[in-house]
Amino acid sequence: MDNKKSNQEIDRRDFFKKAAASVTAIAGTSLISSNARADDPAIMHHVPWGQKWGDPVTKNRYGMPSKYEHNVLRRNTKLLASGNFRASIAVTPIQESMGIITPNGLFFSRSHGGVAHVDPAEYRLMIHGLIEKPIVLTLEQLKRYPSVTRTHFIECPANGGQEWRGPQFNSVQFAKGFMSSAEWTGTYLKTILADLGVKKEALWMLAEGSDSSEMGRTIPIDKVWDDAMIVWGQNGEALRPEQGYPVRILLPGWEGNLCVKWLKRLEFSTEPWYCKEETSKYTDLKPTGKAIQHFYANEVNSTVTSPSPEIDWTSLRDGDIVEIQGLAWSGMGTITGVDLSFDGGRNYIKADLKGLVLPKSWTRWSYMHTYKKGEKLLLTSRAMDDAGYIQPTIDQEVGVMGVEAVYHRNAVETWEVTETGKINHVEIRTMKEVKDA
Amino acid sequence: MDNKKSNQEIDRRDFFKKAAASVTAIAGTSLISSNARADDPAIMHHVPWGQKWGDPVTKNRYGMPSKYEHNVLRRNTKLLASGNFRASIAVTPIQESMGIITPNGLFFSRSHGGVAHVDPAEYRLMIHGLIEKPIVLTLEQLKRYPSVTRTHFIECPANGGQEWRGPQFNSVQFAKGFMSSAEWTGTYLKTILADLGVKKEALWMLAEGSDSSEMGRTIPIDKVWDDAMIVWGQNGEALRPEQGYPVRILLPGWEGNLCVKWLKRLEFSTEPWYCKEETSKYTDLKPTGKAIQHFYANEVNSTVTSPSPEIDWTSLRDGDIVEIQGLAWSGMGTITGVDLSFDGGRNYIKADLKGLVLPKSWTRWSYMHTYKKGEKLLLTSRAMDDAGYIQPTIDQEVGVMGVEAVYHRNAVETWEVTETGKINHVEIRTMKEVKDA
Repeated sequence: MDNKKSNQEIDRRDFFKKAAASVTAIAGTSLISSNARADDPAIMHHVPWGQKWGDPVTKNRYGMPSKYEHNVLRRNTKLLASGNFRASIAVTPIQESMGIITPNGLFFSRSHGGVAHVDPAEYRLMIHGLIEKPIVLTLEQLKRYPSVTRTHFIECPANGGQEWRGPQFNSVQFAKGFMSSAEWTGTYLKTILADLGVKKEALWMLAEGSDSSEMGRTIPIDKVWDDAMIVWGQNGEALRPEQGYPVRILLPGWEGNLCVKWLKRLEFSTEPWYCKEETSKYTDLKPTGKAIQHFYANEVNSTVTSPSPEIDWTSLRDGDIVEIQGLAWSGMGTITGVDLSFDGGRNYIKADLKGLVLPKSWTRWSYMHTYKKGEKLLLTSRAMDDAGYIQPTIDQEVGVMGVEAVYHRNAVETWEVTETGKINHVEIRTMKEVKDA
Repeated sequence: MDNKKSNQEIDRRDFFKKAAASVTAIAGTSLISSNARADDPAIMHHVPWGQKWGDPVTKNRYGMPSKYEHNVLRRNTKLLASGNFRASIAVTPIQESMGIITPNGLFFSRSHGGVAHVDPAEYRLMIHGLIEKPIVLTLEQLKRYPSVTRTHFIECPANGGQEWRGPQFNSVQFAKGFMSSAEWTGTYLKTILADLGVKKEALWMLAEGSDSSEMGRTIPIDKVWDDAMIVWGQNGEALRPEQGYPVRILLPGWEGNLCVKWLKRLEFSTEPWYCKEETSKYTDLKPTGKAIQHFYANEVNSTVTSPSPEIDWTSLRDGDIVEIQGLAWSGMGTITGVDLSFDGGRNYIKADLKGLVLPKSWTRWSYMHTYKKGEKLLLTSRAMDDAGYIQPTIDQEVGVMGVEAVYHRNAVETWEVTETGKINHVEIRTMKEVKDA
């Protein structure tokens, strides 16, 4: 199988070259196959929705998706629930994602004591400890600091973490949907701290939530002074309850768990706190039996999002063009490139980065493919970032981390395209297995 | 009144200079006034939401805003309804907007025959007329063209158009909220046309909707070949029904009315169609009695969004810092600057552009202000774009257009801050009136 060659033949430039040449004189069929004839007026019969009044604009003062999109939802499974659905996660349908914004209704939801409903009039934020001018702020006061808006992903460090021993879910939503992306509005913590004054000996900041789990995480002061934000806005409106309404911490690129929701308290100290969720959880067990602590940034990563087990190619016909799409992201910086393999990682070609390419943000990538009926493919993507990192193979990652870890899994993922166009999540562990495939 | 000087004293650089100087040693109070004492543990009493389980993550598989945000809604008024709420508009609460994304639930909704609910399985798009290979596409086929994602505003050309004779609404939502912004995903029309082939004599494209109004608008072929898109995605999910689900046209920067929703047909011809909505409506009556046709791009514009009649300064105390914020946008290109006046347009200072500055997109601007109790201000913003345009004064615009027009009003707007911190929408027509204010 030499996919490299066959795919180079229809690369993006070729597509547009052919397309441009076709402007003035075209024979034969278009790139998209259609059975319908445009000269048949019956095709544009009077559709039912054109024969009656639609809804008045007064009907939904806060709008919702079309009823036909009822299947595009956050999903959860007992396999991911830590004993109950309050200390649990609901994951984003990234197979349906477009661009680099996740709509707030589909943003992944992770809580440790359920989703709290905080009254903004009762909300207070205490900032104290090694602070010159400790303060308690109302929401209105907090929002008077100079605001900033930035687009960043948030990713649970357990994204894909159930799969250290191989694929558990034949689903890209469950395999890679522990993340979402939004345009966040808030204020830089450095702006507040410059105003309040931080004592020199302060090296760590505790962020504590006001929900029933009283989530506490310790953040090194360098990150606080770098790009840490306190946010109250998400995609142009108030944070959703699942995201910590009215206020959460945002640490661009770092573990979602560190981005404490329903934030009530920031305390500055000389030592880390070693809270429950940074000792028994959110540490990574190594083969030696020791665990890695102070694991913060989500490493460079990527996945194919379409095709997927959820959005397959069974309806494609021979010669149809189709877009292979995916996401790449890095908590270390900006995505510089994505490679795509059709043979499980043996050979790679360059995919196109699409739209805005921003630091610590989802970056969408794409490759136009001409489908051959009956072809068997192993689609693997591999991203790299401007911090100099590139996604490891599974063998490389497991070689270092073993298979007892939960978090920070960023080895390449492979999606099998079967002869019928079905898509399966598979694991390609060795070069030998690739050759056998 | 010399606001220019007083505001220069606390400009953004000064704020940060003071702030930076305060890191190591600070006496006195912070920039944000707070009555609470951070050394009083009672302030962090056990809040009710911290004493019980929150909601399980299974509760809302498509999430909604906090119940406390129940007042952040699209709004409508009989004054803007053309006889009924189906040929009407519901406008966006831009006073609550953050960043440059409008959440889909709050995106302004304008329809001429109500909001249609189109079955995507029944959906067809016909592309015909002066086309080499006319075609009828299903939604699945359409989506196989190479996709593109771009952030653009859509603005009804009647935004502010009820106010040619002076302010009608003491509300920024009703005065300027006939617009919203989103990250759109679809395909460039030029990609489809390069594939299908357009005959040389084709100079105009009809776009026709499938809703009960069968909205038809004619688009010059140059725009079609430039940046016109067919879009199916909005902020990372399918278009909402109010935005034309499953497919609409997007003509970046041009009248919202041209961006035909529930799109069913594109026909190419040598002449414009002169449909109902481009003759009796969406043309602008001049003082001569003649109307302007073929009016397309929304001109450079801006407004203050906060403070506003909806979000006033009555709770501020003397010396409080507060952010004056607003939006600027141009259908001609990219915003290059925004000026802010505190005296109704007599003197201007530069505001800061914030976050991403993208072509034909909302651009957020900001100015940090130190509030003086009892001060009276006339806040006026003035934007400019890289096409070389700058917003006119009301006198300049009315001098050309008279007051019989409805569309394309882009003169500067003024918002009065009263002694008590209430905000009013006012009209500043002449330099004399400014002096009297």
